[in-house]
Amino acid sequence: MAKVSILGAGAWGTALAILLGNNGHEVTLWSSLANEVDILSKTRELKEKLPGAKLPESVRISDDLESSCKEKDIIVFAVASPYVRQTAQKARPYIKERQIVVNVGKGIEETTLDTLTDILHEELNNADIAVLSGPSHAEEVSRAIPTTVVVGAESKATAHFIQDIFMSDRFRVYTSPDVIGIELGGSLKNVIALAAGIADGLGYGDNTKAALMTRGIAEISRLGIAMGGKIETFAGLSCVGDLIVTCTSHHSRNRKAGYLIGKGYSMDAAMEEVKQVVEGVYSAKAALALSRKCNVEMPIVEQINQVLFENKSPEEAVNDLLLRDKTREYSDLKWEK
Amino acid sequence: MAKVSILGAGAWGTALAILLGNNGHEVTLWSSLANEVDILSKTRELKEKLPGAKLPESVRISDDLESSCKEKDIIVFAVASPYVRQTAQKARPYIKERQIVVNVGKGIEETTLDTLTDILHEELNNADIAVLSGPSHAEEVSRAIPTTVVVGAESKATAHFIQDIFMSDRFRVYTSPDVIGIELGGSLKNVIALAAGIADGLGYGDNTKAALMTRGIAEISRLGIAMGGKIETFAGLSCVGDLIVTCTSHHSRNRKAGYLIGKGYSMDAAMEEVKQVVEGVYSAKAALALSRKCNVEMPIVEQINQVLFENKSPEEAVNDLLLRDKTREYSDLKWEK
Repeated sequence: MAKVSILGAGAWGTALAILLGNNGHEVTLWSSLANEVDILSKTRELKEKLPGAKLPESVRISDDLESSCKEKDIIVFAVASPYVRQTAQKARPYIKERQIVVNVGKGIEETTLDTLTDILHEELNNADIAVLSGPSHAEEVSRAIPTTVVVGAESKATAHFIQDIFMSDRFRVYTSPDVIGIELGGSLKNVIALAAGIADGLGYGDNTKAALMTRGIAEISRLGIAMGGKIETFAGLSCVGDLIVTCTSHHSRNRKAGYLIGKGYSMDAAMEEVKQVVEGVYSAKAALALSRKCNVEMPIVEQINQVLFENKSPEEAVNDLLLRDKTREYSDLKWEK
Repeated sequence: MAKVSILGAGAWGTALAILLGNNGHEVTLWSSLANEVDILSKTRELKEKLPGAKLPESVRISDDLESSCKEKDIIVFAVASPYVRQTAQKARPYIKERQIVVNVGKGIEETTLDTLTDILHEELNNADIAVLSGPSHAEEVSRAIPTTVVVGAESKATAHFIQDIFMSDRFRVYTSPDVIGIELGGSLKNVIALAAGIADGLGYGDNTKAALMTRGIAEISRLGIAMGGKIETFAGLSCVGDLIVTCTSHHSRNRKAGYLIGKGYSMDAAMEEVKQVVEGVYSAKAALALSRKCNVEMPIVEQINQVLFENKSPEEAVNDLLLRDKTREYSDLKWEK
């Protein structure tokens, strides 16, 4: 039995608290919002987002950051990406040397182009920082639907320790040394989900959507490899797997926003209609900035940015993608003759 | 303008004849069935499978193999996999030295475990054999829906020649040297589509389906790399891309048969209901045989075979997949510490 704290009581943090509580661990679920803690403590359920999924009685709910961070085997960061830096700054005084921290959020900071583990490294300077990611709708995990994820950590020992704590007979955890690859795939795949949604909105077919998804993976891989990730990771759960879940789910905000843009909505009108943060819009900017910084060609990301921010018509963007120069599928593969 | 012959007037052969005719080439579409040739010549349309898509007037339809094979720049094999060997044997006398032949079929010969290009190499011993594959429903290609494919060839010159002839502003062709990787991905992905269908039939969620698809790709990659393919190819159009199209399409026979098996149908009852060849059932056997021959672990393929041929219950198969030993996502990625 391990002592685990989860910072952030949104859908994903709460689903993981249910999983880890049912795995028999001593779990604390922390939220900065006293009101949220009150309701959760009384109802033991995140009614709107995870209806019917009860937190095990053993899970302690708290708004006290100090007791939530001290003497823990693992601290899970399940904080929405814009709040990761400030939460880490507040938690820092209570976090011990070499504390194992698992980031389960996704995103890239717009101003710095830092990933979330970059931020955690900067703010918690001696922590042992890992990442957990994969095709995992929180709502399905809370109902114990079979799910797989991958844990990336700097050392094998840490990866195995985290694997042992999260794994159950409905939640299969793989391990990997490729922390940066896992983070980039999960963060950038939303741009491609947006593109796939646009193709659907334009009335194009399954061929077009599969093309955008696959070629999207190819360009994320190119960027990710330039940044130190491994090609295997981009073919794995945190990138292709998560992209498949996002593009096939009707719940995906990114896909839906793209669909509306394909139907002729402006970006602002689409975001208004979806009524929630459309992560892919921010990732699109970050991906473009990274592609320029790393000098990597990303034609789909380029076109999506022109559609989102320069009023280019989606049809024209698809045409321009199809009419590009003839090229190889992967430029690293070469002919002997 | 090139002289191109397409052997096989099924949905895919006919869609490619429409594409190549519209690209301005001199196209012959050959069928061994005089009756089929008659109807196609009169109606200029494959009514049942490609309704509304007319063959350009320039396309010649023929049941004469000799004139269809002689003096061509490219011969396309669009024959159903069980007929590839005998068609190649019949065509051999008319096929010149170093003739460029493009295989667009998918499958593995059950008795020999040969791919279709292996068969073409054996039967047409001095031909220059290439492959064209990717997420390309024939029906969408016949309606000029934006589509991408990859051409694999032994030499760069041949790959570029084929790319030039097939490429249009709605049909984007990438090139690759990895012929074996392209063929294996396209042939084996149907086993995974069957598994994804079974998960749907069992009522599992999007997480489970994405897990099976992604881990399915991982095991196809392991096998494919052992057989000489490249990991990039399995992350590309002919494997991931084609798998996405197959698993998301409601037309897919493989997905549908899997769905019925997940609902409790026996394999025979499911095949009866689908009323067509379910390619994944044959690929499942071939994949298992190849995994043993190459000594590669393929847990999903193992379980699918037990469900199909040994009456194992699908629930038990999923359980056994989830409860396997803890492992790494890709065993080639190693920790430094």
